[in-house]
Amino acid sequence: MTSTMQHVPLGIRRLLEHAVTVYADQKLFTAQPGGDLTEATFAETGANAARLAHALVELGVGQGDRVATLMWNNQEHVEAYYAVPAMGAVLHPLNLRLPGEQIAFVANHAEDKVVIVDHTLLAPVSALLPALKTIEHVIVNSPAGADTDLAAVSAAAGREIGVHDYAQLIAGRPGEFDWPETDENAAAAMCYTSGTTGDPKGVVYSHRSIFLHSMAAVGPAMMGLSQSDRVLAIVPQFHVLAWGLPYIAFYSGVELVLPGPFLQPEPLARMIEKTRLNRASGVPTIWQGLLAHLEANPDIDVSSLKEAVVGGSACPPALMEAYDRLGITLLHAYGMTETSPMVTVARPPAGLTPEQAWPYRLTQGRFVANVAARLVGADGSVLPWDGVSAGELELRGPWIAGGYYGVDDEDKFHDGWLRTGDVGHISPEGYLTLTDRAKDVIKSGGEWISSVQLENLLMAHPAVAEASVIGVPDERWGERPLALVVPRSGAEVSFIELREFLADKIARWQVPERWAVISEVPKTSVGKFDKKRLREQYALGELEPELVSSH
Amino acid sequence: MTSTMQHVPLGIRRLLEHAVTVYADQKLFTAQPGGDLTEATFAETGANAARLAHALVELGVGQGDRVATLMWNNQEHVEAYYAVPAMGAVLHPLNLRLPGEQIAFVANHAEDKVVIVDHTLLAPVSALLPALKTIEHVIVNSPAGADTDLAAVSAAAGREIGVHDYAQLIAGRPGEFDWPETDENAAAAMCYTSGTTGDPKGVVYSHRSIFLHSMAAVGPAMMGLSQSDRVLAIVPQFHVLAWGLPYIAFYSGVELVLPGPFLQPEPLARMIEKTRLNRASGVPTIWQGLLAHLEANPDIDVSSLKEAVVGGSACPPALMEAYDRLGITLLHAYGMTETSPMVTVARPPAGLTPEQAWPYRLTQGRFVANVAARLVGADGSVLPWDGVSAGELELRGPWIAGGYYGVDDEDKFHDGWLRTGDVGHISPEGYLTLTDRAKDVIKSGGEWISSVQLENLLMAHPAVAEASVIGVPDERWGERPLALVVPRSGAEVSFIELREFLADKIARWQVPERWAVISEVPKTSVGKFDKKRLREQYALGELEPELVSSH
Repeated sequence: MTSTMQHVPLGIRRLLEHAVTVYADQKLFTAQPGGDLTEATFAETGANAARLAHALVELGVGQGDRVATLMWNNQEHVEAYYAVPAMGAVLHPLNLRLPGEQIAFVANHAEDKVVIVDHTLLAPVSALLPALKTIEHVIVNSPAGADTDLAAVSAAAGREIGVHDYAQLIAGRPGEFDWPETDENAAAAMCYTSGTTGDPKGVVYSHRSIFLHSMAAVGPAMMGLSQSDRVLAIVPQFHVLAWGLPYIAFYSGVELVLPGPFLQPEPLARMIEKTRLNRASGVPTIWQGLLAHLEANPDIDVSSLKEAVVGGSACPPALMEAYDRLGITLLHAYGMTETSPMVTVARPPAGLTPEQAWPYRLTQGRFVANVAARLVGADGSVLPWDGVSAGELELRGPWIAGGYYGVDDEDKFHDGWLRTGDVGHISPEGYLTLTDRAKDVIKSGGEWISSVQLENLLMAHPAVAEASVIGVPDERWGERPLALVVPRSGAEVSFIELREFLADKIARWQVPERWAVISEVPKTSVGKFDKKRLREQYALGELEPELVSSH
Repeated sequence: MTSTMQHVPLGIRRLLEHAVTVYADQKLFTAQPGGDLTEATFAETGANAARLAHALVELGVGQGDRVATLMWNNQEHVEAYYAVPAMGAVLHPLNLRLPGEQIAFVANHAEDKVVIVDHTLLAPVSALLPALKTIEHVIVNSPAGADTDLAAVSAAAGREIGVHDYAQLIAGRPGEFDWPETDENAAAAMCYTSGTTGDPKGVVYSHRSIFLHSMAAVGPAMMGLSQSDRVLAIVPQFHVLAWGLPYIAFYSGVELVLPGPFLQPEPLARMIEKTRLNRASGVPTIWQGLLAHLEANPDIDVSSLKEAVVGGSACPPALMEAYDRLGITLLHAYGMTETSPMVTVARPPAGLTPEQAWPYRLTQGRFVANVAARLVGADGSVLPWDGVSAGELELRGPWIAGGYYGVDDEDKFHDGWLRTGDVGHISPEGYLTLTDRAKDVIKSGGEWISSVQLENLLMAHPAVAEASVIGVPDERWGERPLALVVPRSGAEVSFIELREFLADKIARWQVPERWAVISEVPKTSVGKFDKKRLREQYALGELEPELVSSH
């Protein structure tokens, strides 16, 4: 029996139509040099999106063609977010923080036809243009009165391409467009993962996935946003579509403050003060930097800001406490490029005191209804949600990737589930706690040992400055932990004592037998422990572990 | 270009799986005789749904088969809401307030195979059974210890049918079920309209429409519900699926208080006081009755209740003001059986004073993003959202009906839009104000005249007790208004004076020329002006209008 409901696809077009009618007067703010903010209504932004779509049609952009952006968070970038998918093409925000050769790899892999570039990024893009083999048109987003040398861009390409000024290109075109009714499973936008190993891989979002993600994200269990809120979108539009905020805005009417390239504490604090915004989103590093600035400048009024969603990596509890004292709740959320991104938000259950709520706030959060989750153990079995059993998190849902663009990766996707590569446990109430990346977990005799837990315990010992734990091959157990310890300056470390220190706190079989002292833990470019480097050093025989056993 | 997202259908099954894991400990409360409430967790309710599904399979219920309910709002009814669609069958709640012959018509039209009945409703159902030709099994929901005579039900049918006790039927079966992955466009549930003309017509909701409606309804712009809320679901489960609340609950974790048959002010007030619930839903009549009770019993503590969504018909402003004084916000919402039902909710824009917000609260509300709306004028043109232009409201969206079950109704659906039969205007901010039913609007020379507006203006005249206006045929204009006036006791009415009274307030061409005095306006069974009867009286020559023209 089929239903009698209308067959209406979920689409970016509907978000746009809704915003320019029901939320016509809501506003986008874009930060400008010198600290001013420009304003545009949703109606104006939507009309410009229509103008851009007309221009793109004239440039030869057709159904399914990729239109790249290399832009900060700003109004014109939001216009592209709507024009490109609503006309049936595919938006591809390029990560401007990647090295040039990776940007070129990604743009060529996606076969981007057009790229829209902020004028401040024009120099690096011009240098890259000869390598961007599929680009036929460059559209430069310059402020009014900027004297951008478009001919120089053309010359830099070394081949015939079109170079256009954004404002001139869209000027005078109709502010309405006869948007096609696109299949909801068609591609709307794509982002590449900046994977630490191998080439970046493309995730292609559909109209359906973006629409559903927006609907869920506004719910009180997730971001809880409506037309009475104003959000500082610190997370870049080139990073998982700014966690969906430009789409969430047009669904819900929530106003956006877009910081452009001004992501330093001082201009961010000024934006909060000026726009009296009440919500924000960003990675922990941003909040760490802003905190120092706010503490040094207590006269800055950020009292309007009540809550900020923090994702990307775990937020230090001390940072959350510091913001609590400012009346700002930092709220953990979990997701990744492959998950659109929102999967969990750490809102505590109702009716708890702040003390009771605290442990819930430290988790990655509770799952949203659309996304099914399971934990898969070392032996492939599905584990219970008992708050203890640790396994790799696997996800299934309409905004979860089922593959990469043009690449087979059977290891990442199986049975219709995404393997996240994250290891952790889930409480009976559905709160996720992540402990490790799967590749850093030590698989010992069919059980998993958390390297992160061992590291944190060791670093709590007074004689230890830093500690890192990696898995090394073991004939009997498959793998066993190797503990690498940096002693505190002037301190002596005794491996026997450290083993006893651990034995009080974890299961006996999890305590490492292999130990070594090192002078420092190697770090990645973003300051994380570089375990890949440690594993290489071990393989090269550069680490000489001592075997310590108990009596 | 297709996306790389997983293909995961939206389904009732996912709502159920989510509730029994993430919201396992949330509760449903069901009112019992004597004022007590029983409690069940979502996990228990979900396990019973699985047990019921096993039982229904045994009774021969297969994919697409219809399972009817004739039940008040209670836990077992929620169990059926999940068991039936999640197993791939179709839930059909029967409206127990309809006359027996209409219930029989509807059950036969839907070809219901099984009916689940509350034991308090068993007498009327037994009497109907011979007419319920497709019913093969009756399942009786009796309280523990009730001595229900199942053999008598069997005998009443006059043919061989199965009769079962609900609790006994599900007892001992597994609390888990291997739910199928159903196509999201498949039928999940159906409700019939209780149309004032013609036979009731069936609206068949899909898994997709119910899921999307739940997602949207929890948003802060709509109901704004989460696991920290507890809702009194006064609107019956046989009426547009209780506005979706049983599904919204499992999506969001919101707790439900189910009043059973106890819809009188006294038990409702007691439920609020006992469960400290904070939200509610119901038609204006319920709130009117409850208000009188609360005013007469100021010791009843309903301070926990903050907001109630009111739909079904417009709420008198005085009632809203009275509840404002109690700290309870009555919130208009608009929808109908054909719209799942939620389309608009009257939340004012942000940042207004109560005085500024008041006019917004009196509208039917603002549209949700999933539903496109248009106003179509008398001449078929689409009208602007200017807060003045009046047309028939047409709707398009994934939870809006595109047809009726097994019946062609081309007049109701055209171009992929639902014609709501409601006439009104929409403000530039997307707030809907309804003024008339389309059938009561007077089509005069290609323009529409609102009969309701004329009636309200006339009834504001001191000499007029009641007034009703109907459209009557006119050679030149197609239709013209006929004003029927009931004078206030002892007052004289002058039609010339009434015309002048109107001419100050509306366009000259809208003022009626045809007038008659009547002794009273005939009323329908629910107290509305019976314009159908007035039109019949006019056609029979029983009304003799006087022609009054201006000088």
